Amino acid sequence: MSAGEHSLSLPEEEMLLLTGYMQEKQEQVDRALEEILPPAPDCPSDIVEAMRYTLFSGGKRLRPILVLASAEAVGGRGEQALPAACAIELIHTYSLIHDDLPSVDNDDYRRGKLSNHKVFSEAMAIFAGDALLTHAFMVMTDARRLPDTDPALMLGVAGEIARAVGVEGMVGGQTVDIISQGREVEPSLLDYIHSNKTAALIRISARSGAILGGGSEEEVRAISDYGGKTGLAFQIVDDLLDISQSGETEGGDQQLGKATYPAVHGVEKSRQRTVQLIEEALADLSGFGPAADPLRRIACFVAFRDH
Amino acid sequence: MSAGEHSLSLPEEEMLLLTGYMQEKQEQVDRALEEILPPAPDCPSDIVEAMRYTLFSGGKRLRPILVLASAEAVGGRGEQALPAACAIELIHTYSLIHDDLPSVDNDDYRRGKLSNHKVFSEAMAIFAGDALLTHAFMVMTDARRLPDTDPALMLGVAGEIARAVGVEGMVGGQTVDIISQGREVEPSLLDYIHSNKTAALIRISARSGAILGGGSEEEVRAISDYGGKTGLAFQIVDDLLDISQSGETEGGDQQLGKATYPAVHGVEKSRQRTVQLIEEALADLSGFGPAADPLRRIACFVAFRDH
Repeated sequence: MSAGEHSLSLPEEEMLLLTGYMQEKQEQVDRALEEILPPAPDCPSDIVEAMRYTLFSGGKRLRPILVLASAEAVGGRGEQALPAACAIELIHTYSLIHDDLPSVDNDDYRRGKLSNHKVFSEAMAIFAGDALLTHAFMVMTDARRLPDTDPALMLGVAGEIARAVGVEGMVGGQTVDIISQGREVEPSLLDYIHSNKTAALIRISARSGAILGGGSEEEVRAISDYGGKTGLAFQIVDDLLDISQSGETEGGDQQLGKATYPAVHGVEKSRQRTVQLIEEALADLSGFGPAADPLRRIACFVAFRDH
Repeated sequence: MSAGEHSLSLPEEEMLLLTGYMQEKQEQVDRALEEILPPAPDCPSDIVEAMRYTLFSGGKRLRPILVLASAEAVGGRGEQALPAACAIELIHTYSLIHDDLPSVDNDDYRRGKLSNHKVFSEAMAIFAGDALLTHAFMVMTDARRLPDTDPALMLGVAGEIARAVGVEGMVGGQTVDIISQGREVEPSLLDYIHSNKTAALIRISARSGAILGGGSEEEVRAISDYGGKTGLAFQIVDDLLDISQSGETEGGDQQLGKATYPAVHGVEKSRQRTVQLIEEALADLSGFGPAADPLRRIACFVAFRDH
């Protein structure tokens, strides 16, 4: 499979390969997360339980899989990137818990289960999110977990991840998303929200893997671009699914008056934009051989998933 | 001034020296924080404003000053420890904002000003806290800010700070503090809460400075012990001030039914324990010369401050 001969909607054989790949990597990530966040005997059990509740609630592990697949795409071993992969899943989980809070999106359900603050309490959900975010940076800086890693490389990756998920990235995007609720949103502001709220974390997932896998500067840049575009496509598809799954009724984002790509540009243009982004993401990988096939399949999967 | 000849309540001359020292270091920390968190043109202004509101709301900068003083006590330069000092103040600020939230301590005021969520909104206060915590780790991992620092050393310090403020430290303590509200608390549980909620951050402040200042293993251990004891004394004095300042009425912590040292052990025993802790903290510094005088004065100041 190469960028030239790709079919955007995956043929069955490719889909089977991807499903097998993702399952294998998901198990690898889950095992690593279990080691990272056990019900530690010397930690208060309530907060550990709250942290684990959302961390092990059936996520697809898309972001950590992207980290591992990007490391392999540049010829590295996935294991080298495993601490960053776990950290990014911890960060993703914290962002879901805080996003669901009553004063933010006020979502009672997440992945078909009660959201964190509904099961525990609002205070516990805030602290569980804080603890997951902090744990993410501990995982990336704990020397015992990083036997083969160059400290300077790891420090740089941790710094890039922090930048991507803080005020200059994900949290910045979440903030503008909240402030813009119920307001008319310019296309440029919508791009800012999507680039930061969603795409920044997916982009840094791919980029971290490429750096830790030992990729060249050019390879790292290409995979970062791939990640950014795949991340934007992911958000647009998310918004499209929100509409189609809610059927006659309005989707959750529409109820909140959130700025979405389909709301601003219409459904048809949103579909076209998704295809265009994935084509560009695949083009970014044109210099890579078969080692990047998982990345190519993931991009197509993101664009054409139905949940 | 040495551990042997100390007077626990600082004579006027010592107090003047400490005031001058703290003012100088506070200005150094404030300048560094201004560089770290400017009203960045490419960041959403609302969240930056919320972050800066509490960060620049008149804190004494006790923790970052401890970082710098500990670096100097082992013969290092304060500048080497400045990124960690700033990071710790960012973390302290985030913890205050999240602690004040309606679902946690529900405090409308902080340092005589409206608390973050009262000025902005609950959602913005949650995100401002998240962003400050993330920024703390960015500051410690951004290579451009660390020209003279050994990456392995910095990675190790960032990891120790993460451990001290996460589920195994500060957040763990905050959680138990919330869960225990209105319940009878065993002395051992109270020790857990104080050791983690307050003392862990003060201990790691001193420890980080000693490590980054190039201290020997023994020096780092002594200064860590000093920090832990000073941190515990700080919390007990905080609880005592909460009672004395509220006069006839109950203090804020009493209203919340929080476990405090005076509530469990009585006021007199609390004062004795403070003196004992500070004496032990000073004894930890007995192997140090005059370079540790600022640390000695800070411990006495912590024990006998009136606000």
